[in-house]
Amino acid sequence: MAQTKLEKLAGILKRKIDQGNINYVIPDLWNAWNYNGPEMRRIPSQELLVNPYRFYSTLIDEYILPNKQARKNYSNSLSTITNRTIQDNEQGGDWVRKSVLYSTMIRTSSAWDHDRSFSLDLSNFDTMKETGTFVKTLALLPLLQKMGVDTLYLLPISRFSLKDKKGELGSPYGVANFFDLDPNLKDNMTGKAMSLEEEFQALVEACHMLGMRVVIDIIPRTNSVENDLIKEHPDWFYWIKASEASSYRVPYVDGISSTVSPNPEYMDKVYESEDVIRHIKMFQLNPKDQNPVQFEKLKEQNGSFTELIEKEFDLKIAPAFSDHINDTQPPWTDVTFFRMFMDHPKDNIKYLKNKKANPYILFDTIKANLFPGNVPNQELWDLLASIIPYYQTLYGIDGARIDMGHALPKTLLQMIIEEARKNDPDFAFIAEELNPDNASKAKEFGYNIIIGNGFWMEPRIWEKKFHKFVYGAKDIALPMFACAETHDTARIAGRDGGQNLGRLTTTFNMLLPNLVPFINSGQEVYETQPMNTGIDCTNADKFKLPQDDLFYGKLALFDKYAIHYLNPNRWEVADHLDGIKKIRNAWLDQITNLDCYIPLYFNEFDTPAIGVSYFNKKTGKCLLVVANTNCYNDIQCNASIFKLREATGNKDHVGRLLYSTYEFGRDYHDFTPDDRIYFQLGAGEVKVIEF
Amino acid sequence: MAQTKLEKLAGILKRKIDQGNINYVIPDLWNAWNYNGPEMRRIPSQELLVNPYRFYSTLIDEYILPNKQARKNYSNSLSTITNRTIQDNEQGGDWVRKSVLYSTMIRTSSAWDHDRSFSLDLSNFDTMKETGTFVKTLALLPLLQKMGVDTLYLLPISRFSLKDKKGELGSPYGVANFFDLDPNLKDNMTGKAMSLEEEFQALVEACHMLGMRVVIDIIPRTNSVENDLIKEHPDWFYWIKASEASSYRVPYVDGISSTVSPNPEYMDKVYESEDVIRHIKMFQLNPKDQNPVQFEKLKEQNGSFTELIEKEFDLKIAPAFSDHINDTQPPWTDVTFFRMFMDHPKDNIKYLKNKKANPYILFDTIKANLFPGNVPNQELWDLLASIIPYYQTLYGIDGARIDMGHALPKTLLQMIIEEARKNDPDFAFIAEELNPDNASKAKEFGYNIIIGNGFWMEPRIWEKKFHKFVYGAKDIALPMFACAETHDTARIAGRDGGQNLGRLTTTFNMLLPNLVPFINSGQEVYETQPMNTGIDCTNADKFKLPQDDLFYGKLALFDKYAIHYLNPNRWEVADHLDGIKKIRNAWLDQITNLDCYIPLYFNEFDTPAIGVSYFNKKTGKCLLVVANTNCYNDIQCNASIFKLREATGNKDHVGRLLYSTYEFGRDYHDFTPDDRIYFQLGAGEVKVIEF
Repeated sequence: MAQTKLEKLAGILKRKIDQGNINYVIPDLWNAWNYNGPEMRRIPSQELLVNPYRFYSTLIDEYILPNKQARKNYSNSLSTITNRTIQDNEQGGDWVRKSVLYSTMIRTSSAWDHDRSFSLDLSNFDTMKETGTFVKTLALLPLLQKMGVDTLYLLPISRFSLKDKKGELGSPYGVANFFDLDPNLKDNMTGKAMSLEEEFQALVEACHMLGMRVVIDIIPRTNSVENDLIKEHPDWFYWIKASEASSYRVPYVDGISSTVSPNPEYMDKVYESEDVIRHIKMFQLNPKDQNPVQFEKLKEQNGSFTELIEKEFDLKIAPAFSDHINDTQPPWTDVTFFRMFMDHPKDNIKYLKNKKANPYILFDTIKANLFPGNVPNQELWDLLASIIPYYQTLYGIDGARIDMGHALPKTLLQMIIEEARKNDPDFAFIAEELNPDNASKAKEFGYNIIIGNGFWMEPRIWEKKFHKFVYGAKDIALPMFACAETHDTARIAGRDGGQNLGRLTTTFNMLLPNLVPFINSGQEVYETQPMNTGIDCTNADKFKLPQDDLFYGKLALFDKYAIHYLNPNRWEVADHLDGIKKIRNAWLDQITNLDCYIPLYFNEFDTPAIGVSYFNKKTGKCLLVVANTNCYNDIQCNASIFKLREATGNKDHVGRLLYSTYEFGRDYHDFTPDDRIYFQLGAGEVKVIEF
Repeated sequence: MAQTKLEKLAGILKRKIDQGNINYVIPDLWNAWNYNGPEMRRIPSQELLVNPYRFYSTLIDEYILPNKQARKNYSNSLSTITNRTIQDNEQGGDWVRKSVLYSTMIRTSSAWDHDRSFSLDLSNFDTMKETGTFVKTLALLPLLQKMGVDTLYLLPISRFSLKDKKGELGSPYGVANFFDLDPNLKDNMTGKAMSLEEEFQALVEACHMLGMRVVIDIIPRTNSVENDLIKEHPDWFYWIKASEASSYRVPYVDGISSTVSPNPEYMDKVYESEDVIRHIKMFQLNPKDQNPVQFEKLKEQNGSFTELIEKEFDLKIAPAFSDHINDTQPPWTDVTFFRMFMDHPKDNIKYLKNKKANPYILFDTIKANLFPGNVPNQELWDLLASIIPYYQTLYGIDGARIDMGHALPKTLLQMIIEEARKNDPDFAFIAEELNPDNASKAKEFGYNIIIGNGFWMEPRIWEKKFHKFVYGAKDIALPMFACAETHDTARIAGRDGGQNLGRLTTTFNMLLPNLVPFINSGQEVYETQPMNTGIDCTNADKFKLPQDDLFYGKLALFDKYAIHYLNPNRWEVADHLDGIKKIRNAWLDQITNLDCYIPLYFNEFDTPAIGVSYFNKKTGKCLLVVANTNCYNDIQCNASIFKLREATGNKDHVGRLLYSTYEFGRDYHDFTPDDRIYFQLGAGEVKVIEF
């Protein structure tokens, strides 16, 4: 069989070992696999000085490639490689229910100031790239494996536009071309010997060899205001006069309160609003239809195509904005919406004064699932439905999150899901659905999991929302993520409860019913600075770091950013997860089967204690997972295990403390004759008991 | 006029600025001249990231060369350049009486871990040299000027042997060739574009342009056991059988107590000693006289000449040892003595059983000033007397310390001094004489200053030896160094009193009568680790640093070592000296003239206070310098200024506090009607008051 891209990569790196006697440090967390090259030296900052070529090639040779099996094609999805059978009670892609996800932003997660110049450079003193790359991400895999992670979820990796970019680097959510990778993720170590695409292939192969899956993030509703489709399809976008762009704003609708979902009943008010009428009048015919000959001529000229159009046509692509009426957010200057239909919304055209109005962005046109037109933009839909198959064929990715999938026309969403499952019936889909009530709708579409609202509920321990989330999860139609933070939210360790809350949620999340562990990059080292302040973030959250921190006020989604991998407690969460993953693996069938689950209720009034339990009918064994959500004080509590005893016939009065975030394992004796069990729990402690 | 070597150096460095975008840091103390290149960045360690080529070339261009005057030849001594007139009451070289010396070990003083690899490399990740070099020493000059230093005293800079070397690098006191410079002091930045000799020339020129003098250290009594003279002059050395070298030891003389000076009255006992007889018998005829033909043949062979001799002749040069009888020190394996006379000591030959004994090392032969022979080793003497003229001609050095000069044959010492003063009548000589009682003898020889015993007296504040030293200095025939430490002793900041004692001595020493300020490299940043444990050091002093310090247990004289220039209080002493040097300069004529000096005595019994005063008859002004040698508590004290009033007629009752190491300057009112003055002094405080 042909050489894998990973082997090619190892070969390229090995041939350059002689050039690697350079000043290159990595955080010691990147060496969770005990690299011990002759040149390696730990320096007082706890970084490791290594020869990067020897380090990364040895990582591949000694940690990853030994797992490679003969006659396997690692550029297929892992389900294809392992011939995973989809069970009768399963949807294709339901492997995700048993997985542990790690949300990775390649640019950030594998960023490091390798030359300690106190700036993240695209080419540092030694011409090494300091922002993250696919190649350097390999060094995180041993740490992730230690933590029990088996699925790498990647924030967008496509080429994005730098026009009107936010922050130092721009947001990867402003995609310029779905089919190109972000060139910033190319590593300098390989130079021209390997292409960017090959480097991503190598990373996916590496994950597959280690039994890990790779999930990507697809954004089919928006695109950068400067993208590669404009040239051929200017009519897929909304246009305004460039000279009027500065007065472009979100129209305000009198008589509707703020941030309201654009339901049909509001549409008459929307279209009556003078500000909406003003707004609709701003929109122009696309340049090609204005002057096809001049448009064709422009295509032959050099320079930025959008700038040429601005100059020659006085036209500009209109920025996107929130689909909620009277949302206070300003327009999102870097992105725009695709025209999903080539005509106006069929249910609202009656309100439109000028039926021949140019295509316009409004709360309805951008919520195409609720307000379809009669004429689908079929060519666009075909293109959007071909994105995932492209990544499947070229890279063998295992799943995808669809950004704002619920706002897409239903038919388009169905097309996207069907096309992917044609290639790989076990391809997983993650719905960007935060509302648990919508889980059943998502399930109908073929999603395997929704994001859910864990990121909102888990941090709110005093309001008992963590309790509500955990105890309520069993009733949701699809699994949700057991997650305390995402790339859009405040960081869990930066909230009230601090590192204790971070440790509590990250460990407890590993063993919850109908919830899939989801770890946000940096969460494992108690990172406090959010990557974006999109959801459930205050402005103060943006300034969590000390003022002399290199990344004070910086957001990974827009700026050069590296995780604080040198946190003195950096190994703590990984060590805990290393212990807990063994319990998770032993009990995985029960944890992911609601028939084996019994919620644990405590006898104290209004206790911060929270607990779940599982039983194995065959062995008669029971597993208790309890936590103290009070991150400041210890508590004592007791819970009934009557139902567990009933379900299993287990009458043991001696159990085993399998794990605690506070104490070593030991025998557990605190059972009462009346089928209760007592717990002493430290601040934020998680205890796992088997009997 | 031809380009100076310093200008050549600047040119070479400037041409390489494009190559200087490398990972290179310096301690901020090296930038006491406010370099602010576009690339400069201060990093959290308080080091500065700079382009080394731009940094050092800008230093030369902007700080040093603007001081260059037309039609001056900066490769002459500073006295020659400035045509300094030797006054009638002066000895040539007496400029040293008004100078402030800084004892520098090039290899150490300008050493830095520029790539932060936590090792001092001869060629680091960026092929830069991290041990000290002549070129990098330029960066210390602005700091030294700030501190008022005007004389750079260099520990040996000659090429030394690595045979049987001590420590990681070997001691520069084991000279292999007087006329070669130590190749380790060559900088990598200049590469082949500049020779080692030119780089030293550039440093001396730079000092001269800044009005600073350069003094070197000459070691004419000993040489390395592997040196360049052996080939032509094997008879200038003492030989033993190589096969017996392991049993070579210092002979013990019964009936004499330990560490006794080898005075003539002991010589009968010495020569009667069986151990001495055994010892003398070990010595052999030199290889050339044993077999001239074979010796000549060996000279043509490749390889280490001393090893060839060992192999072919079973001969080895005998190691030196202390000239004190029954000293407990073992032989100094890396060095040997020169044979100053070609016959046995004329006064002791009567004791020698075998008058034809081979030349031997004994307490008398090595103390040639006391025990001359009849036949001087004239050719050797001529060579030794030519060393300083060589350095004068090539580099224009301004003075020299003669290592163990008092142990040389008188005639040789006279030759050395005379030959130097023939070239430069104002050439200064520093006697390595620690005993103040011998100052008048040193003066007769033509020395300008003796080292004296300040390093021993000043630290002993509780025993009032600091008092004795300061108040006694006026009675010594030559000035001594006002010094609290040397490269051979424990560090002042490492002693009882710590940084307070370091600050006290270093500042107070600037204003003392018949004492010349002498600062040991590192003293200004409260370095605690001695450079050598030769004198007044315990073994514990060798381990002053924390165990995780890179230089724990290392000694600069033998090992790779860099001063702890990042001490948080690193600027404190320099800032104080910057203030005090202005007072010193204003009062320099009085401070260096004992006729203007009156010791200040305090009225309290046994007070830790110490004080000196000067008066200017012309202006009627008086200067008081008082210090509290108690480094832990403040004191109150008062002293009589009756004699000052008498000498000047000054009746002021308001003075000015010109400087204090504890408070800002202010008017001073604490005068009494009965001609006393009161002081409140903080722990270790120095106050300077003018009225």
